[in-house]
This record gives sequence, C-alpha cells and structure tokens, in this order.
Amino acid sequence: MPQPFPRSEFEARCATAQAAMAREGIAAMLLTSEPDLRYFTGFLTRFWESHTRPWFLLVPASGKPVAVIPAIGAELMAQSWLSDIRTWTSPDYDDDGVTLLAETIRELVPDGARLGVPLGRETALRMPPADWDRLCALIGDRPRHDVSALLRTQQEVKSPAEIALIRETCAIAGRAYARLPELLTPGVTLAQVFRRFQMLLLEEGADWVSYLAGGAARGGYGDVISPADDRPLAPGDVLMLDTGAVRQGYFCDYDRNWAVGHATPEVQDAHRRLHDAALAGFEAARPGATCADLHRTIVGALGQDPGGRVGHGLGMRLTEWPSLIPADNTVLRPGMVMSLEPWLPLGPGLMLVHEENIVIGENGAEWLSPLAPREIPVID
Amino acid sequence: MPQPFPRSEFEARCATAQAAMAREGIAAMLLTSEPDLRYFTGFLTRFWESHTRPWFLLVPASGKPVAVIPAIGAELMAQSWLSDIRTWTSPDYDDDGVTLLAETIRELVPDGARLGVPLGRETALRMPPADWDRLCALIGDRPRHDVSALLRTQQEVKSPAEIALIRETCAIAGRAYARLPELLTPGVTLAQVFRRFQMLLLEEGADWVSYLAGGAARGGYGDVISPADDRPLAPGDVLMLDTGAVRQGYFCDYDRNWAVGHATPEVQDAHRRLHDAALAGFEAARPGATCADLHRTIVGALGQDPGGRVGHGLGMRLTEWPSLIPADNTVLRPGMVMSLEPWLPLGPGLMLVHEENIVIGENGAEWLSPLAPREIPVID
Repeated sequence: MPQPFPRSEFEARCATAQAAMAREGIAAMLLTSEPDLRYFTGFLTRFWESHTRPWFLLVPASGKPVAVIPAIGAELMAQSWLSDIRTWTSPDYDDDGVTLLAETIRELVPDGARLGVPLGRETALRMPPADWDRLCALIGDRPRHDVSALLRTQQEVKSPAEIALIRETCAIAGRAYARLPELLTPGVTLAQVFRRFQMLLLEEGADWVSYLAGGAARGGYGDVISPADDRPLAPGDVLMLDTGAVRQGYFCDYDRNWAVGHATPEVQDAHRRLHDAALAGFEAARPGATCADLHRTIVGALGQDPGGRVGHGLGMRLTEWPSLIPADNTVLRPGMVMSLEPWLPLGPGLMLVHEENIVIGENGAEWLSPLAPREIPVID
Repeated sequence: MPQPFPRSEFEARCATAQAAMAREGIAAMLLTSEPDLRYFTGFLTRFWESHTRPWFLLVPASGKPVAVIPAIGAELMAQSWLSDIRTWTSPDYDDDGVTLLAETIRELVPDGARLGVPLGRETALRMPPADWDRLCALIGDRPRHDVSALLRTQQEVKSPAEIALIRETCAIAGRAYARLPELLTPGVTLAQVFRRFQMLLLEEGADWVSYLAGGAARGGYGDVISPADDRPLAPGDVLMLDTGAVRQGYFCDYDRNWAVGHATPEVQDAHRRLHDAALAGFEAARPGATCADLHRTIVGALGQDPGGRVGHGLGMRLTEWPSLIPADNTVLRPGMVMSLEPWLPLGPGLMLVHEENIVIGENGAEWLSPLAPREIPVID
C-alpha cells in the first residue's frame, strides 16, 4: 500500500490516544468509520464505497490496535503496522463479525470497564443497528463511553506529514483552477465543465475526486451543493466550482468564482467583501483565538451575518470539526487545518461563496490554497 | 437539479412502500442514508461526502414524504416533488435537528404506533448515536420496527428508467475499458494508469468516479480493493481495473483483466475458467432461480469454491443486496441488476477476478456490460 507515513507516526497517534484513554479510564476504543480506521492503521482503500460489510478496529489501553475485518481486506491490512488481524468471511447473514468482535472486546476490556465508542457530533456507527444491539448484549457490563471529543481533540491537530499532504492536495487544486479557462469552449455546459475540471484535477495529480459541486447562473447561484446541469454557460453568469480532491487520502476543500463575459457591480462588490472577510479571518486565525472569535471577525468584515457556519476543519475528511459558528469555543492550536468560507446572500435564491484553506502556525496562519484575487476574474 | 425520472416514478416508489408499510402496520419510515433519501425524492448531491450534518426523510403511511434537513439543502430539495421541507441551521451543537425530527415523527406516528427504521443488513444509522438515543427518548412509546427487508425487497427490482441509467453507465465504462491501451506509455505506473483511466471514464460520460480499484503483479494480484502503487507495469504482469463509475446517480461495477506483454498458461487458463463461470451464471440467472442456485452454478463451473461471494446486486450503490452466497435464498425477479463476480486463487497472495453486470428479464438475463473476451487480452 502506498504509505505516506513512517511507522513512528502511527505509534505516536496510538500513544497519544492511549494517554487520553488512560485519563478517562477507557480500556479500549471501538472504531467503525473509514477515517478513524485509517488514522490508526494507514488502511487506505476506496472499498468503503461498498456498504455491504462492516469494519472494526479496537484501540486497546496499551499495545497496537487490533483489526476485526472482513477477509476481503486481510491482504491490504497485512501491509499495515498491525500484527493482530482477525477476519471473518463477510457477508455472513447469521453473524457478520459480531461474535468475533464481541470475543475480542471481552479479551481487551475487563468486565465492568469502559469501552470507548464515538457517539457524539459528526459521528455515526457504521454497522447495522440490529448488530450493534446484539453486540451490546454479548459484551454485557462494559459501559459504552463517548470518545468523540477525545478523538476530535487529537485529530484536529495535524502532524507535519499530514499538513504536507494537505498542502500538496491544495496545490493540485490550485493548478487545476488556474487552468479553468482552457475548459471554456463555445456553448460549453456546466456538466461538461464539471467533467473536464475533474479530468484537470487528475492530470494535475489528484488520486481521485471525492467532491465537486458548483453552480453557474446570472448574478450568483442558488446553493453550493448542487450537481451540474446541462445549461450552457452564458454571459453574465457567475461560475463557481468547489472541490474536495484527494491525494494519498487527504482532502483540500476550497472554491473559486469566475464571471462569464462580464461582472455586475453587485457581484464585483460581493467578491471583494468576501475576499476581505477571508483575509480578516486569516489575520485573526492565531493560536489562542477561538472558533467563535474567528466567526465574529469574519462576519464583522462581511458587514452582515449570513447565517450558518463560515468555515470548518478538514483533512482526512472533506469537512471536519471544528465549525466557525458562535457556539464553537474550540481554541485554535498550531497544526489545525481550516477552511475560511464566508458567503453572502445576493437576493432571492442567489448567493456568492468564497473559500480558502489555511493551517494555523505558532505565529499565525499560513495559506494552503493559493489566495484568490480580490477582483472576480472575468473569463470569456 | 438534473432529474432523470418523471414525478410519477417517485409517486410509484412511494405508493409501493406505503402498501408494504400498511401490511406491516408501520405508521411512518425514518430514513437517514443517501440512497434511501434519493430513492424517494431524487435528491442527488455529492455533499454527503461531508459527514458534519445528518439528513432525515419520513415516509408517512399516505401522502408525500416529509424532509427534515439542514437549511443548506433547502434550495436543492425544493426542486424535488416534495412539498413539506422542514429545515434547521446545522451544525447546531445543542440540538442538531433532533427536536424538529421528533416533532415531525410525533405528528406522523400516533402514540403506540410503529416507526419503521432500517436496522438490518447493509444498513447504518447516519446520525450520531447519542442523538439517536435522544430522539428515542423524545418520541417515547413508538416502537422501532426494522424495515430493511421491506426496502430491500422493493429496491432490488429496478424500474425500466433505472435499468436504462445503469445500462448507460455500464456502456460508459465499456468504452473506457476499450481505450485502456491508449494509456500504456513506456514505464507507466499503476498510479498513472488509475489517474488516466478515471479521466477516460469522465471523457466517455461518467459524471464522477466513485470507485476504482485494481492491481498489477506477476501472474495475478493480491486483492481487489487496493489503491494504486507507483510501480511501473512490467512484462508478465496481470493488470486488473475494477470501476464503479456513476452517471446520474447510478453505478456500474465490473472489472477487466489484461496481460502485459504475455500471459502464462496458468493465467490464460484461469481467465477462461472465470469467463466460462460468468457465462454459466448468466445462463442460470432466470426468474425463479435463487441466489444460492446461482452461486452453486458459478462455483460448479469454476470447478472449485473460492470462498466468499461470487456476485451481488448494484444500482444506486456500488454494491447492494442480494449476495451470491449459499445462504441467500432471494428469488431472482425481472428487473434485478446483478454483478457476476467469479474469482480464483492462483497461489499464495495471488488471485484473478472477472466481473460482469447483468439485468434479469422475463426470459433470462441480459448483459449490461459488454462481455469480455474469453482469452485474456495481451497489451504491450
């Protein structure tokens, strides 16, 4: 498996988690999600796209994690730093790994001791709820203890190797965005732009493109999550693309806007305000500031609160905690990677969004995305 | 939103589900997964890549479904056939939609009546477990009833419009596979082949490429789920690519094998046996046969049971129920779309897999993928 991290990185991740587990009296953590398994093992595969089989990882109080996985993943997991890999042939309609998982938990977690499971925000149990209930019955008196905050606190600070990967993915997207004008043939539709832009991302070095959204409409667009339609681009449109490309499992997440043919004064002005707000956020993004502080700064620079969040974490996922909202009191620390994502409503069903990616350093933020120009670029 | 289905298709899906719900005494179904929401609404967005926010859909005993979703999705959902769309500003750390969802459930489900929720195989609750517990407390005496079998039975039979979309995606992949030799420049690595092949899929009409796995090694490959490595292809390698491209939300899922430079007699023979097993499966895939029958036929034609499953359903997901395993007694019905996926171990850490996609018709199966040649193609 192409492995961007030395073994020591996984050992350090595991040791940090185990120290936090010890403080909370947790005998082992049960993880079921793709990023959580990858974080502790390096197990990188697009096979998670198949929802047929569950995958389990146990992080014990000490020693290496133990994988309890479908046999189809044994060969790939054997290339990781793990030595205890337990498998079953999945799908098994009678017992899809539940008994094997319960046995492993009973081995690692003494009776009455806590089993850590991510139960809070931005988590989900990636296994059938009926199997979860069966597992709980089998492991009996081992109270389930929420470790979502524990994992959040650890994963939101990226290592230098992780930051280097995100920087690389951001640079790939930057080169693709710079080549956007190449895609604009007469009569080109938004759907064609989406296809060709994904090809550019791949050509520039993305391993795959997990996310692309955008819009193109007169004087703005309706939302930031829509797939492409088949309407040809037309003069007066504002075109926006927002991508989460992936390189070695790490995402970028930022957008770019272009005016097709010409920009109205409203659009020009909104683009400048968004740019100024991103810059203000960048200046304020220093260790010790909170996410709420950053939200206040960005909204202040915009001159209005558009509602919702104006930025978030990213890394192994397209979007991660924390969120730039008034309720988020997370303190920024060096190594946190964030998107700054101010947006403005521009009338009924119209908006403009600007997004950049940064990393928090000891003395302030650093751009990971190549900062967009203040003036919205006009393309023909 | 580009909508490949007329409104009547969604009305029919809803009516079919409601008839089954009536038989099981279910007052409403709560759905949280991307394919389930899309199946009943047409809501198509790659924004599910962000795991920050939960999304909910309620299918009541009669009438249209009710969406309970983050405000960021309101504009896109408003383009669907739904008329009752309730939103909250997410993320909300105090109450991320739980109260709004509970109120809506109390409105649609009388006290003491059943709330349907997918709890069985191949499902997961896409929301924080702690929020699920909170929801259950808020809705009180409304027993949760597993609807995974109900949904499976309905969704495994595709409509003519769905089959047409899967056929189109399969054809796109077929054109890309046919162009594979274009990618083979001297010294090309597997990672480069992966990138360029995804570009081909997009050029041939894929909207995006949710899945690509494969391998290249002497005389076979180690597994079927690995990402690409940076080793240059070399004479004697067997190259395999397996893709789940997507067009208008519908997947293909089939692979192709090539021998680089030359093929050993073992590889040639294994490819023929796999091809013969796929053909035998195709012949046996008639209405009335079961998945267990099909498994027996394919394994019989292979001359050995390689273990695990040898095919599965597909459509809105890369892989869907049923599974071609001895324990699956699902009866094949017209409209079911399946992969036939025989494989053979070829020695320690080596295997060969062959996969095709078919649809079950009234009088037997039809190829959706363009059947591979019986002899493994040699490329230079």
